[in-house]
Amino acid sequence: MLKYGPGLLPNQTVLYPGWPVPTISFMASTKPTKSPVTTMRTTPKVPFPSEGEVPTTTEQTSDVWVLDLTWDDGFGMLESGCVSVKNEANIMMKNVVDVVFGGFTYWLFGFSLTFGADAGATAFFGIGEYAVDSNYEIMGPVFASFMFQVSGTMAERCNFKSYCIFSLLNTIVYCVPARWVWGPGGFLSSMGCIDIAGSGAVHLLGGVSGYIAAWMLGPRLGRYDNGPAPMPLGNPTSCIVGLYILWWGWLAFNSGSTFGVSGDKWKFAARASVTTIIASIGGGLVGSAWTLRRPGKLFQVMDIVNPILGALVGITAGCALYHTFDALIVGMIGGLIVMLTSGFADFMRVDDPVGATAVHAFGGVWGLLAVGLFAEDDKGAGFSKGHSGLFRGGGFYLLGVQALACVCITVWAVVITFIILWVVNKIIPIRMEPYEELLGADFVEHLVRRRYAGISPVLSALGSL
Amino acid sequence: MLKYGPGLLPNQTVLYPGWPVPTISFMASTKPTKSPVTTMRTTPKVPFPSEGEVPTTTEQTSDVWVLDLTWDDGFGMLESGCVSVKNEANIMMKNVVDVVFGGFTYWLFGFSLTFGADAGATAFFGIGEYAVDSNYEIMGPVFASFMFQVSGTMAERCNFKSYCIFSLLNTIVYCVPARWVWGPGGFLSSMGCIDIAGSGAVHLLGGVSGYIAAWMLGPRLGRYDNGPAPMPLGNPTSCIVGLYILWWGWLAFNSGSTFGVSGDKWKFAARASVTTIIASIGGGLVGSAWTLRRPGKLFQVMDIVNPILGALVGITAGCALYHTFDALIVGMIGGLIVMLTSGFADFMRVDDPVGATAVHAFGGVWGLLAVGLFAEDDKGAGFSKGHSGLFRGGGFYLLGVQALACVCITVWAVVITFIILWVVNKIIPIRMEPYEELLGADFVEHLVRRRYAGISPVLSALGSL
Amino acid sequence: MLKYGPGLLPNQTVLYPGWPVPTISFMASTKPTKSPVTTMRTTPKVPFPSEGEVPTTTEQTSDVWVLDLTWDDGFGMLESGCVSVKNEANIMMKNVVDVVFGGFTYWLFGFSLTFGADAGATAFFGIGEYAVDSNYEIMGPVFASFMFQVSGTMAERCNFKSYCIFSLLNTIVYCVPARWVWGPGGFLSSMGCIDIAGSGAVHLLGGVSGYIAAWMLGPRLGRYDNGPAPMPLGNPTSCIVGLYILWWGWLAFNSGSTFGVSGDKWKFAARASVTTIIASIGGGLVGSAWTLRRPGKLFQVMDIVNPILGALVGITAGCALYHTFDALIVGMIGGLIVMLTSGFADFMRVDDPVGATAVHAFGGVWGLLAVGLFAEDDKGAGFSKGHSGLFRGGGFYLLGVQALACVCITVWAVVITFIILWVVNKIIPIRMEPYEELLGADFVEHLVRRRYAGISPVLSALGSL
Repeated sequence: MLKYGPGLLPNQTVLYPGWPVPTISFMASTKPTKSPVTTMRTTPKVPFPSEGEVPTTTEQTSDVWVLDLTWDDGFGMLESGCVSVKNEANIMMKNVVDVVFGGFTYWLFGFSLTFGADAGATAFFGIGEYAVDSNYEIMGPVFASFMFQVSGTMAERCNFKSYCIFSLLNTIVYCVPARWVWGPGGFLSSMGCIDIAGSGAVHLLGGVSGYIAAWMLGPRLGRYDNGPAPMPLGNPTSCIVGLYILWWGWLAFNSGSTFGVSGDKWKFAARASVTTIIASIGGGLVGSAWTLRRPGKLFQVMDIVNPILGALVGITAGCALYHTFDALIVGMIGGLIVMLTSGFADFMRVDDPVGATAVHAFGGVWGLLAVGLFAEDDKGAGFSKGHSGLFRGGGFYLLGVQALACVCITVWAVVITFIILWVVNKIIPIRMEPYEELLGADFVEHLVRRRYAGISPVLSALGSL
Repeated sequence: MLKYGPGLLPNQTVLYPGWPVPTISFMASTKPTKSPVTTMRTTPKVPFPSEGEVPTTTEQTSDVWVLDLTWDDGFGMLESGCVSVKNEANIMMKNVVDVVFGGFTYWLFGFSLTFGADAGATAFFGIGEYAVDSNYEIMGPVFASFMFQVSGTMAERCNFKSYCIFSLLNTIVYCVPARWVWGPGGFLSSMGCIDIAGSGAVHLLGGVSGYIAAWMLGPRLGRYDNGPAPMPLGNPTSCIVGLYILWWGWLAFNSGSTFGVSGDKWKFAARASVTTIIASIGGGLVGSAWTLRRPGKLFQVMDIVNPILGALVGITAGCALYHTFDALIVGMIGGLIVMLTSGFADFMRVDDPVGATAVHAFGGVWGLLAVGLFAEDDKGAGFSKGHSGLFRGGGFYLLGVQALACVCITVWAVVITFIILWVVNKIIPIRMEPYEELLGADFVEHLVRRRYAGISPVLSALGSL
Repeated sequence: MLKYGPGLLPNQTVLYPGWPVPTISFMASTKPTKSPVTTMRTTPKVPFPSEGEVPTTTEQTSDVWVLDLTWDDGFGMLESGCVSVKNEANIMMKNVVDVVFGGFTYWLFGFSLTFGADAGATAFFGIGEYAVDSNYEIMGPVFASFMFQVSGTMAERCNFKSYCIFSLLNTIVYCVPARWVWGPGGFLSSMGCIDIAGSGAVHLLGGVSGYIAAWMLGPRLGRYDNGPAPMPLGNPTSCIVGLYILWWGWLAFNSGSTFGVSGDKWKFAARASVTTIIASIGGGLVGSAWTLRRPGKLFQVMDIVNPILGALVGITAGCALYHTFDALIVGMIGGLIVMLTSGFADFMRVDDPVGATAVHAFGGVWGLLAVGLFAEDDKGAGFSKGHSGLFRGGGFYLLGVQALACVCITVWAVVITFIILWVVNKIIPIRMEPYEELLGADFVEHLVRRRYAGISPVLSALGSL
């Protein structure tokens, strides 16, 4: 039997201060609901809806899934804009298989790892509730939107079939830290860690995982022959469309993640939507100012897109707990961190074509730490768990817990990604063959011929080898 | 006066187990509402909202319309990705005129055909309520999303003005079977036919109608000169973006179609969203496995897109009545059917550029039959009408009714499409002239010049004829 | 202390018959709420949500912001489709900075200009509530979606940095008339002016402002060398995708703008969604008929896109107050006006690449006047303020007020746009250098190289100068 943390006693409504919240809590304002944990123990067999048990699910869920798909689409567009034309369809396909394979294993065992509460479940991983039946709608909301960073950092040189296997196993990477911060009795959650919509358990995790994957793959052929300067974007218009889709989805997501358990928690959703938009404005302002340092003061597309995304990552962990002015600061620092760290991966000669390391890993660290500085206790609404940040009179405790979360998630991401990719590499080598990489994944993996992708000269050149 | 079927007595809340449901029923959980039929008889003049009558409409409707437009956009993108570049704008324009002309005639008489309950209305078609005033918000939700299959199968060779006339008349094709399965007293509905979100009355109907249209048009010039192998996609990235938009809309649609009449029918909406995503995952898995049969084991784009769409079509009819595991099976079989039948149209030398026959016609048949196998009685919630499928202990009755629905809808689609297109062809020939087809519809119908669509060589070649 | 207009006495729920309405009023049906004005006076310090005050905000807001971003995306796509390829990324970037800079100044002082009710506020502009804290969620909803028309009319020749400064100041252009028609005690609102979702305060304002900006910039190089015939579209497919996104957002927006203050105002939202779609159908029908006048009866893309947009602009001011048939007429006249005035800007040799003058300025005038003709008193629901249009028995009063609004908004737009751009031009010249314009803004402002944008020949030609 799972030992419950202090805030998670049985017979008490469980607060998941993370993405799954809307699912559980939105309906709670209109009808009595049990925590999924409680329900599981009293009704080991998943009840069919017409059998009278009140399930812990709502139609909200579909919205969250929809947002997930939106997000995948957005990242797909952004990534496809960043890579060269010969890999555009490939990267979109990778985002599709992420939904298919990742969604499948999430249903099979990922939900269990995060929320399972059968005998044997611990503060570090869950047990039970495999392949749950429909009513369990807390399943699923989160997963699909997670793997993008990896598909981005592995762009243009990762074998597609290896990537499919990785998609299947990636569920493990994600669902264990989700247990820590959102699951019943998760050890970080019990200590008071706040990560409302996933700066740590989604973005930091994904960013670090992507960095490790990019390091294991090695850089694209010839990537650093002319130094670490960024490659030109394949399609800047797609990047901006992708930004819009993400912006859009992020706003809805942060807001949706904070629908409250009790009657008037909608206030926090309203607050989350304002802080999110204000933070992104702060990130955009920093990016615009940064361009003044560029030769010719040119507004390069990614100088605007990436700080806005970094600000969004930064605001995500504590979106419902900030004042507006603090949100502006959090966003501006988030944007600044992205600009300052945007060269890090290339400096390490780790080839990260979409800049996920700066946006998601460094942005995610900032997101977790910002909570420890600016968050204000919500006086029982369930997000802040009784703690305030340093600048709101809460002292260093929360900041310390958030820093611990950064360390734990980072270490986990490094170790598990390495292990999984090492295993996958034994099954199917993760790196494409050089001639495949030159031809482009669209052609060699999906038989897509592109008139202007320069395949013919490559074929000629290869023929003369 | 319309004779009501067994489940549709006056003074009883009418259940429309189809797309229009959200409109009527969502509000019903918060305020007393009359069935539109009842309202019509007691208030022959449509009441203005401030006049005190409770109309049967809600703001939900706008969401449904929005979804429709989303869907049109998604199909537009998917189709434009499938066709050659010289017809890309044309096919998007066809989807726009579908909304304009189809929406117009739906308002004029289509709503009446499906829901009209004035004297003379029968179990086969409705009478009355032409050009209804604003409050009747059950109008409209469904129509716009329907014609895509036809625009797809007629791609690249159909005269645009003929297509506009067809759009005007297509309302007849659609609204009569909608009466059968969703309208008050429809004969299939009275027998217990279940088609919650339209596997039959939308997808099967549209797929068969599109097949007939493609057959009447004949194949594109030179289509089968080199055998029936598929033509290359014009823009695979657009296909995947289109898939995302459709996936997104489908999830919301199936979920939205099941908002319940009574207080806790949101459970079924939650269930519909899970079964829909799980089914699409099943379709994607089958598509991925299928690629292992391909030479080089290549993941071709449409090998993933079409099984996912086929799984979505398959789950649509009974989305709220399946268990999760059954949904996976339904989706996998749906995906498999699409792959197995994907060569059918080309084998018959019927040129279906987007694969609508396999996805919508065969997928739609599977969707109706799957209900007869897997559906579980919802014990009064109004979707299952008291019947269960064969594997849930309901015997063969429901399966038989569903099979009857397949036959009736198919026969109707064949006959009415043939008649309407035959008439349209007398007014304006439906097939473009050969030189127009070679130049591409973008240029000859919309004066769009494309640099890389190869118009100049065609013009030169035509000049030398 | 602000003097309240007749409909805005203290202790009475304030009706903002404009876009911010959903924010305030949607929750009002489920919980008691104070008007933001009242709240401001009693709680000068913005309350933190957990401190017990009921804020006037809801989670609806995020939806509205999401719609705004959708709209920006839609206009970005539409505009990028209209301009030549070498400016495609530039125009998307302009829409992004509109959100960033415009959103920032809206937060700083724009909200105050419209809704501020501190001492000194008048019927013409507001005072107070600068940089409001999160709970004030009536902030923001509107702003971002406004500047598109200006980015459109200034396309292909406006200096990007000047544009950024203009984005900062544009808040002034917009927020003052918003006070007049939506703010507490606004002078037009007090007279009974109806502009529910912004035909005047958004579209007319933006269209006139854009026209003045285009006039001040002068035409693109060589634009009228071959007469005023329109330039070919850079990417017609993008135009149609943009139309879909806008259509989609508009429907949700008009519907969302009319969520009512009291319990059953959802009727008006339902009505707004029907009138909006019916009007757009009317516009599309007129556009289709118009093509019959074209040589070859060609359906040019903008012949469909622009009348649909014009119809949407036309229906926007009174969307919740029309009968369905009237909505069809309003949409058809809106579409007709766009077609009739589409040559106006070019006739004046004012170069408006996206046709914003016809759609937004002339369409906006029609939108305001149509209310004076067709609007029906809503008997206290708060939109019509007790007046009816001429054809609904209200006489000429409302028509006169709406005409006055047209005049006031137009004069304001002309004067303030001229002043601001004149000032901006002194800081950074608003017009690009000729060689920059020839190279294209994507390259000179954002360092985007495009293979097929014809930069190389231009560079060669410039080298020989």
